[in-house]
Amino acid sequence: MRMSLNTFGHLFRVTTWGESHGPALGATVDGCPPGVPVSAEALQVWLDQRKPGTSRFTTQRREADEVEILSGTFEGVTTGTPIQLMIRNTDQRSKDYGDIAEKFRPGHADITYWQKYGVRDYRGGGRSSARETAARVAAGGIARAALATLAPDLRIAGYMVQMGTQTIDRSRFDLEEIANNPFFLPDAGAVEDWSSYLDGIRKAGSSVGAMIELRASGVPVGLGAPVYGKLDTDLAAACMSINAVKGVEIGEGMAAAMLTGEANADEIAMGPDGPVYSSNHAGGILGGISTGQDIVVRFAVKPTSSILTPRKTISRSGEDTTIVTKGRHDPCVGIRAVPVGEAMMACVLLDHLLLHRGQVGETLPGRIG
Amino acid sequence: MRMSLNTFGHLFRVTTWGESHGPALGATVDGCPPGVPVSAEALQVWLDQRKPGTSRFTTQRREADEVEILSGTFEGVTTGTPIQLMIRNTDQRSKDYGDIAEKFRPGHADITYWQKYGVRDYRGGGRSSARETAARVAAGGIARAALATLAPDLRIAGYMVQMGTQTIDRSRFDLEEIANNPFFLPDAGAVEDWSSYLDGIRKAGSSVGAMIELRASGVPVGLGAPVYGKLDTDLAAACMSINAVKGVEIGEGMAAAMLTGEANADEIAMGPDGPVYSSNHAGGILGGISTGQDIVVRFAVKPTSSILTPRKTISRSGEDTTIVTKGRHDPCVGIRAVPVGEAMMACVLLDHLLLHRGQVGETLPGRIG
Amino acid sequence: MRMSLNTFGHLFRVTTWGESHGPALGATVDGCPPGVPVSAEALQVWLDQRKPGTSRFTTQRREADEVEILSGTFEGVTTGTPIQLMIRNTDQRSKDYGDIAEKFRPGHADITYWQKYGVRDYRGGGRSSARETAARVAAGGIARAALATLAPDLRIAGYMVQMGTQTIDRSRFDLEEIANNPFFLPDAGAVEDWSSYLDGIRKAGSSVGAMIELRASGVPVGLGAPVYGKLDTDLAAACMSINAVKGVEIGEGMAAAMLTGEANADEIAMGPDGPVYSSNHAGGILGGISTGQDIVVRFAVKPTSSILTPRKTISRSGEDTTIVTKGRHDPCVGIRAVPVGEAMMACVLLDHLLLHRGQVGETLPGRIG
Amino acid sequence: MRMSLNTFGHLFRVTTWGESHGPALGATVDGCPPGVPVSAEALQVWLDQRKPGTSRFTTQRREADEVEILSGTFEGVTTGTPIQLMIRNTDQRSKDYGDIAEKFRPGHADITYWQKYGVRDYRGGGRSSARETAARVAAGGIARAALATLAPDLRIAGYMVQMGTQTIDRSRFDLEEIANNPFFLPDAGAVEDWSSYLDGIRKAGSSVGAMIELRASGVPVGLGAPVYGKLDTDLAAACMSINAVKGVEIGEGMAAAMLTGEANADEIAMGPDGPVYSSNHAGGILGGISTGQDIVVRFAVKPTSSILTPRKTISRSGEDTTIVTKGRHDPCVGIRAVPVGEAMMACVLLDHLLLHRGQVGETLPGRIG
Repeated sequence: MRMSLNTFGHLFRVTTWGESHGPALGATVDGCPPGVPVSAEALQVWLDQRKPGTSRFTTQRREADEVEILSGTFEGVTTGTPIQLMIRNTDQRSKDYGDIAEKFRPGHADITYWQKYGVRDYRGGGRSSARETAARVAAGGIARAALATLAPDLRIAGYMVQMGTQTIDRSRFDLEEIANNPFFLPDAGAVEDWSSYLDGIRKAGSSVGAMIELRASGVPVGLGAPVYGKLDTDLAAACMSINAVKGVEIGEGMAAAMLTGEANADEIAMGPDGPVYSSNHAGGILGGISTGQDIVVRFAVKPTSSILTPRKTISRSGEDTTIVTKGRHDPCVGIRAVPVGEAMMACVLLDHLLLHRGQVGETLPGRIG
Repeated sequence: MRMSLNTFGHLFRVTTWGESHGPALGATVDGCPPGVPVSAEALQVWLDQRKPGTSRFTTQRREADEVEILSGTFEGVTTGTPIQLMIRNTDQRSKDYGDIAEKFRPGHADITYWQKYGVRDYRGGGRSSARETAARVAAGGIARAALATLAPDLRIAGYMVQMGTQTIDRSRFDLEEIANNPFFLPDAGAVEDWSSYLDGIRKAGSSVGAMIELRASGVPVGLGAPVYGKLDTDLAAACMSINAVKGVEIGEGMAAAMLTGEANADEIAMGPDGPVYSSNHAGGILGGISTGQDIVVRFAVKPTSSILTPRKTISRSGEDTTIVTKGRHDPCVGIRAVPVGEAMMACVLLDHLLLHRGQVGETLPGRIG
Repeated sequence: MRMSLNTFGHLFRVTTWGESHGPALGATVDGCPPGVPVSAEALQVWLDQRKPGTSRFTTQRREADEVEILSGTFEGVTTGTPIQLMIRNTDQRSKDYGDIAEKFRPGHADITYWQKYGVRDYRGGGRSSARETAARVAAGGIARAALATLAPDLRIAGYMVQMGTQTIDRSRFDLEEIANNPFFLPDAGAVEDWSSYLDGIRKAGSSVGAMIELRASGVPVGLGAPVYGKLDTDLAAACMSINAVKGVEIGEGMAAAMLTGEANADEIAMGPDGPVYSSNHAGGILGGISTGQDIVVRFAVKPTSSILTPRKTISRSGEDTTIVTKGRHDPCVGIRAVPVGEAMMACVLLDHLLLHRGQVGETLPGRIG
Repeated sequence: MRMSLNTFGHLFRVTTWGESHGPALGATVDGCPPGVPVSAEALQVWLDQRKPGTSRFTTQRREADEVEILSGTFEGVTTGTPIQLMIRNTDQRSKDYGDIAEKFRPGHADITYWQKYGVRDYRGGGRSSARETAARVAAGGIARAALATLAPDLRIAGYMVQMGTQTIDRSRFDLEEIANNPFFLPDAGAVEDWSSYLDGIRKAGSSVGAMIELRASGVPVGLGAPVYGKLDTDLAAACMSINAVKGVEIGEGMAAAMLTGEANADEIAMGPDGPVYSSNHAGGILGGISTGQDIVVRFAVKPTSSILTPRKTISRSGEDTTIVTKGRHDPCVGIRAVPVGEAMMACVLLDHLLLHRGQVGETLPGRIG
């Protein structure tokens, strides 16, 4: 996935635009193949998963997050021309932004935007707001629609595996449970504890980090490229580009530093439909190219820096001061990062599927056996 | 850092090429500013750090890794035109590659290259060999030379912080020690234990993973861009694109998932020369843009899959078999990944320095105070 | 100017989107420097030049072509984040498109869109309509605003030099006249003849081609790059990408084929402020890099293929038939191509100005004398 | 064809490097599909067409132009990894470059390189030398090999149609004659006149411009993209990027400015294998997408500025002076531009063939009839 400043993707290219409290935000999607069935209603399903205000654990900002398709489709299918997706901002509360306008939140992009550009839209974080991710989810919906046509067996699931001190119990792992709780948890037994924990964080005016896992099954063999266009490179870039993400890993990830070669090798045997692997330390990618095993990616989201606890900071005029960020913030912004991560994974996989067709055609040339 | 399939960088663009046992490998470096003093001798210093055979802990393959500058310089300085760096392969031992040619090493790119392309240069891993990283180090040398001119206070240091069960003791942390031991360790007290540990791995015909930390100090404020061209995104992509890397993190990294907002916020005060921070959980980057604090990146390198322990695998004809990889392999390929990581960081920082000039000119517009 | 499928520019990147009779069309503009004063009103001035229906010589379609700025500005200036420009389509006459839907217009993109994609928005030409150029003009307005800040002496003028059998008389050349006639003619004496000529074409239900010249004065020395990023390459690509353009030339252009080396050389003398040239056969560009002389580009626009004269064609079902294109079409689409060409030139020059800063900084290093 | 500063192409990407009198020059070719038979011998055939010294009408510099393949192939076929092509410079005559080093040739890139970069390799023109085009021809040889596999019916022919006052007689047009004369002329009857004419130019120490036509037959329908990635845009950029080219046109080209809609429309009828056209004013491209008709491109090459006639110029120190360029120069550099143009066309067509696979798969979806 090639990354330009506000664009990602090689052949399936997404450019997001818009500020938190501007008139609208959206995504320009270029390179979607023609003939893919797409509708605003179908995209809305994904946007609703990220939408604020769906539980007490997310910001109470009211945004319908209704997406309009302005171009690139005709009679219900894509035409191969650029697709413009627009989401109007509706809840632009006419409030006083004075504090954020004049002071920099510690741990926030406020100060670096100012230092770099000398101008910034401070209302609700402007471009650095997590609202930008709504546009990613909309674009991801286009990618999913195209994947449904081109790789019908491919499934993408995102879920939380950690939130502060809380972790899931992998022995109870069940992807079916994700839709049944406000944390996208694949572990029904953990929901109650996580709820109590996050209630505590929320009531304290604090916030907390999270770790999200993404898993794609049914991935065609051969997606990716050897060196800089590695599938894992593009997945890492895609995840790291999400607001507040500070780390990304594939398969064993950071834990690979502790393993020996014997422990880390996924042994291979011949199955009826091709190679089968004894394990998946590699996370479904070898040498940057998909093996056909599940692709497993994890990324860590830091706690939001908009908290009620006063923190020391400075003002734009250079005076020491303290700041308390009132407003409607997510106690764990990692929750709503789950559908965002899924969307990014969908974009990367579609992009590499299209690239693969350009690189070697539609069939995989290296048959085994 | 924009990633094309074999190219990285937006304005400072590096394309590496070459196979482990082909005639040569190298890097095409485009976008280096004119007037930068560059010489083969100066590049050689960096290449010698990555060169195999410098201690008993790296592969015993004999390669001089001598770099030739074929274009882009005149009378000792760069001209602004593409710089071609070539390293001839010299130790192409005429041995029998039959085993690797016919069988796939578990955990190696052998199988995916074959499945994707239907053809691969199996000699020494071909394109997927760690030898490709010699070209990165050479290109990184060009980036360092340009940075020495454009950002003379900038320093980049890479070092190991973990190797299998061994970790460093941060209380003894001393960057000056890195040059004094074969592990690039900033902890002199750990060298002996690490040596014994890796001797054990080596003699067992095994291999082990590692974690490398990169640290840049003296980084100008304002490098990076808000969304997809984030400095951390490009650093993550750069590290993940290195052979065998499975995870990347910035500042707190994966541990950010455990923190609260109060714990994670780097408080700000006004210093004599601008903002000063009470801590550096952010790893020197906020909202994708450098703060001026040290940039801190860590990446995990998996153990090499070329080991003497027999592993189950299949042959190209689809038969179950076992494989033992003889030859001259690194017991911990992470050691030689240290100068590679430094080179990638140099490339990303130079690229963003040039981008910043294009984006907002040479001076930073947002003054504080 | 790097061209992606629907994007152009290296650092200043414009992606246009939208269909003739879809809900809206527009441009996503990324890479504009921060702090540039921009308003919808200022953009409207340029859009009004291209707007249909301003004289009897352009299509009578009624479109206000009102542009909305959806992102990327704050308190009247650009912020360095992506600028989204949207123009709603208003005159989507609910007519019967049956003929164009089922038959292919000779000389039109109808047939190739269909053959390539298997689906197309046939209403008013869909994506291939000249309406797409409204988005270019809007984006060009952003480029002009940035140039006004960064290169205040730079002026861009576009004008017609030929329309069918009509040409201008260069001895009467006066840039001030361009604004005074419906043909953007720098030759007041030609207006009456051109009017009669085009009235004849229009009443006959025919159409006619045109040649447009673009001229930039006050261009900084040193914009461009040696080989593929030549300023003339990017100008040629920019012009050729406009609908209906079939040829582009710089300076002497195609006529250079007839010249000898003596005739073509622009001799150089030393002036008070640097080199001065005895002539401008080069069109202001040598080796892909601007000399500081006027940059002179010409491009030819073919006659629109939507004419009232019946032409032989086939239907989607493969039957031979004839077609007559009724509707509100431009008798000379080249007229409205003038502001489009200017917009493209503005985008290319700004892009190269930003690139130049990234490549060699803000000052030109090679002083003469 | 996306153009970066020294790279062109979207998926099939060529980066040329090297100076006229440096150690070597070459091309880094990325994105060639795997399994394409490639050899140095096969590339040499194309290089020999462009090689200097093959007749008295080209420079007498002695260069073997022998190409080495340094990477990207294995056992005679491409592997899908980057292909490095290197040509050593051998005839680096140890002469005095003082005049060119200190004075700027009128009409040459000498002055702009200096003004932009403040440093340049003046030996033989350095990077701005026509020797750079040898690398393009080598890269074009790779493109031709891939096209031979992927589009076996595709044929590319380049030939001169004008040189100064000389033109061809289209009534004698015969592609078979191109190989039989030193001008790549498709008109055997013109060879004698052209020879006498160019002898006169050569003996006078002068030079002359030329026009080259490129023609591709057997092009698959559907290559290209609607707006900025138009096939004609990429062809125009490719040709304009060649040294000394000042104009490019497709089909009717600049003459389209004179035509009416009726005259310009290529009428369509249904043939046994799909649409057939009554004429080819469009030059094989409609709306940026190939129609299946012959693609016809022309480009004009200016006369070389290295002539024996003294011209007024200035020195680096800013003094008025005159210059006479001795040395071994082409009296008509347009002759050797023929194989270069063919190479660029091959690169563009392959690139769009690969892109098309990525965009819509290998089959064309819109069937007619």
